[in-house]
Amino acid sequence: MSPVAERKFWGWGREGEGVSESEVHQLGDSLHDRLGFSDLRLVDPPRLSDIRLREPRVQPPALLVHRCAADTRSRAEHTLGKSLRDYVRGLRAQYDHPPDFVAYPADEADLVAIVDWAATERVAVVPYGGGSSVADGIEPRVGDSYRGAVSVDLRHLDRVLEVDVESRSALIEAGTLGPQLEDRLRPYGLSLRFFPQSFEFSSLGGWIATRAGGHYATMFTQADDFVQALRVITPQGLVQTRRLPSDGAGVSADRMFIGSEGSLGLITQAWMRLQDRPTHRAGASVHFDGFEQAWRGVQAISQSGLWPSNCRLLDHNEALHSGAGDGTTAILVLGFESADHPVAPSMDRALQIAREFGGSLPPEEPDEDEARRWRRFFLRGPYLKEGYTRLGVIRETFETACTWDRFPEFHAEVMDAARKAVADECGAGIVACRFTHVYPDGPAPYYTVIAPARENAELDQWAAIKQSASDAVLRNGGTITHHHAVGRYHRPWYDQQRPDLFAAALRSVKSTLDPAGVMNPGVLVDPV
Amino acid sequence: MSPVAERKFWGWGREGEGVSESEVHQLGDSLHDRLGFSDLRLVDPPRLSDIRLREPRVQPPALLVHRCAADTRSRAEHTLGKSLRDYVRGLRAQYDHPPDFVAYPADEADLVAIVDWAATERVAVVPYGGGSSVADGIEPRVGDSYRGAVSVDLRHLDRVLEVDVESRSALIEAGTLGPQLEDRLRPYGLSLRFFPQSFEFSSLGGWIATRAGGHYATMFTQADDFVQALRVITPQGLVQTRRLPSDGAGVSADRMFIGSEGSLGLITQAWMRLQDRPTHRAGASVHFDGFEQAWRGVQAISQSGLWPSNCRLLDHNEALHSGAGDGTTAILVLGFESADHPVAPSMDRALQIAREFGGSLPPEEPDEDEARRWRRFFLRGPYLKEGYTRLGVIRETFETACTWDRFPEFHAEVMDAARKAVADECGAGIVACRFTHVYPDGPAPYYTVIAPARENAELDQWAAIKQSASDAVLRNGGTITHHHAVGRYHRPWYDQQRPDLFAAALRSVKSTLDPAGVMNPGVLVDPV
Repeated sequence: MSPVAERKFWGWGREGEGVSESEVHQLGDSLHDRLGFSDLRLVDPPRLSDIRLREPRVQPPALLVHRCAADTRSRAEHTLGKSLRDYVRGLRAQYDHPPDFVAYPADEADLVAIVDWAATERVAVVPYGGGSSVADGIEPRVGDSYRGAVSVDLRHLDRVLEVDVESRSALIEAGTLGPQLEDRLRPYGLSLRFFPQSFEFSSLGGWIATRAGGHYATMFTQADDFVQALRVITPQGLVQTRRLPSDGAGVSADRMFIGSEGSLGLITQAWMRLQDRPTHRAGASVHFDGFEQAWRGVQAISQSGLWPSNCRLLDHNEALHSGAGDGTTAILVLGFESADHPVAPSMDRALQIAREFGGSLPPEEPDEDEARRWRRFFLRGPYLKEGYTRLGVIRETFETACTWDRFPEFHAEVMDAARKAVADECGAGIVACRFTHVYPDGPAPYYTVIAPARENAELDQWAAIKQSASDAVLRNGGTITHHHAVGRYHRPWYDQQRPDLFAAALRSVKSTLDPAGVMNPGVLVDPV
Repeated sequence: MSPVAERKFWGWGREGEGVSESEVHQLGDSLHDRLGFSDLRLVDPPRLSDIRLREPRVQPPALLVHRCAADTRSRAEHTLGKSLRDYVRGLRAQYDHPPDFVAYPADEADLVAIVDWAATERVAVVPYGGGSSVADGIEPRVGDSYRGAVSVDLRHLDRVLEVDVESRSALIEAGTLGPQLEDRLRPYGLSLRFFPQSFEFSSLGGWIATRAGGHYATMFTQADDFVQALRVITPQGLVQTRRLPSDGAGVSADRMFIGSEGSLGLITQAWMRLQDRPTHRAGASVHFDGFEQAWRGVQAISQSGLWPSNCRLLDHNEALHSGAGDGTTAILVLGFESADHPVAPSMDRALQIAREFGGSLPPEEPDEDEARRWRRFFLRGPYLKEGYTRLGVIRETFETACTWDRFPEFHAEVMDAARKAVADECGAGIVACRFTHVYPDGPAPYYTVIAPARENAELDQWAAIKQSASDAVLRNGGTITHHHAVGRYHRPWYDQQRPDLFAAALRSVKSTLDPAGVMNPGVLVDPV
């Protein structure tokens, strides 16, 4: 079978789409003008012909050979994710851990056959949805104790199988990407309203397996909350949970697979809780002179019971580099939405709270503009990332969550550690912060580093910055990830963060469901 | 140490409190007048002197003897829960599976010592919070493969250790009962707002271990949602999860212990998410001629995004027997509350929806009265239960949840099965239904059976009714419990409901954390 090979093997999106050369030049100019970066070089994207992959160590099983591909493009596309490290390695044509082949199962029977074969042959199975991992979750870096590795791309499991309008739910296949999913729900007036930044190229199964963060900035923020039931293929067989609106019957079976990152099995379908498409909307941007005023206002809003759908706070640097503002203020982007009732009263009250904390609405421009600018920037972000990399600029993020009581010290220490590391490593550069989600008990801060790198030193420089920042995050009571997952990249900090006995429990679950240890080895737990 | 032995060993609450003899007579009259039950006998409550417990098979360890009690009252108090079966067995002085002794640890060190000793000596450990289980969760019926059983009563672990007003959270010991907990949070203007019917005699640890359902009828309904971090003593050591507002780092460690019913370890402390005490309130009762109109109205409200704090729907029989109405209508008790903003607009919109489905506000009496009558009935319920039992009346409940699309058929078949079984077994009797919690994707119906029993046949009669009803619940896609837990009682249906491979995974977790299999054996999983 010839796979649909239209997605880029390097960078974001489809071949021929994304940032143009002139956009990359504009980006370079903007980095010079806004952040003072000079002498930016520009490297061409890698060409497929430059890439030399190691010879496949295993061949697809005969019965599934028509569902598999081992051409360079397919293997390269399934080697790296979408982080800075992935992009830099790609630019250098370092595709060191390619899958030996890629499987594109057409249905669950194919999938069971692949998993059975892999368990028998001791070949690692790496689930692949949209490929948007920034935590090395889809990279087949599985160690030497496997005969090989197969990347299992779920793109053909992309149907909405059943829609239940009474319960506002749908049974959806795990390989369905964001836009496909919304297209298929639109005729019913329904929406999952789950719009991570990776929306275009991430899948339902990936969102659930990684506990992704979605559209709503408050209340039901993560994929976890929208799962009604799951269907999971493990090497030991099928797990199908019961479809229920809620359930108090013992430990939650769903929650054992949500966040398991492919280490226990492959999620093939999920019943998901949907929303009516909103008909009432309100949006506003609030400016604050100081960041502390701003986050204290957000804290009050988070505890008000107003539950805004959008409550993104951008600090001064984030407002500047995103183009949402000029860097003289922090900006809070607020939104309310409903399919049932007017939301103006909620917005009015939220703005009243914001004003109590020193927030002001910019008088000379309509409120929606900054929100729209921010939204454009948000969706364009993944495309621009490859531009930064080609310009030799480190542009990378880390995200976390902590309780409000810790936040002042947490933020100061994390910013300090990150800034110091940026200065030490890169001389120039900025560290920006935004809140992606907020809870009554604490924010989920998301930090962006933008700094000029030395040629061929980007990975070492970033590694040093990441180490300092992550150590500060852990030391000050944060989590190593709020919604980017653990993957292989965050393991050192995750291993510190989780209770040892919980790790032991999780390993025993893995031993039971995946005795051969072939399911995505290296993420979360090491096979026993 | 002499334990505080003031709680009843049979019935609800403290000795000398609860229903008076005249109240029990009134109840009998009311059952006659309203439901037509005649020839009700009245049996005296059991006396401690009537109870013969088997000799203790094991003695407390010497170092902890001052924290243990083996007197008849203490052992009897820790033998049975608060279900109909418990009350009937108690009346008959059938205390067949008493703990060999009761431990009252003063602190975590005592608790660790007890668990260590029990694991070494192969003595079953049965955690005991408020003792309100209606699913045989605290009954030391552990099988014959243990040398004995100790009931570990956490009543001395009742402190609020830390309050974080910034994050609206508190670190609370697991043995804290509802009223103690609220008393200790009140000075801070905070509240857990978790008011199960068992509030007076159930504990924080019990709520978490059983995934209890709380005050809020919508949005955050179960104890699960309020847990920020947990501290659990397992036979293999301590598990302390990280305090975070949210977290996407792999499978949730908290969720592996929430709902574990003491089978993996003893929850000793939890950081809990709190609420500001509400200052804005609105309440109303809406009458519907037909139950279908009523639940369709509730469905619409559940999907409106209004998130009422109270949204209890009583069907005609429930309204009648609770005294909230006269049985000619179904009654929806609606409530909104906020510590931040007026809730009248939300109530107005909810009432508008209710009217669209045929609901009406009774004109001649203030809206609050039925809500207040319902509330009084709700809190009095546990006390009245012993009255029914003494009158020889089966008054028992079962509760579940299902999706809206299934509900019409589900409800018809469950009601049919229950009514038929009641008619077959008891001749007379009613089956009533209310919704305790509602979700956008389905309700949590709670069924009450009231029927006259034959003398000494109550247990068999109820067993037949329960079997029919539970089979219908499972057959029609419901859960065997929404918030009463699995315990030992629901195991036959729970074992059908959960995926087999999930059961295997859970057993492997138990083997890892509790290799001797001493933690509450019989609930959820059987030790390997």
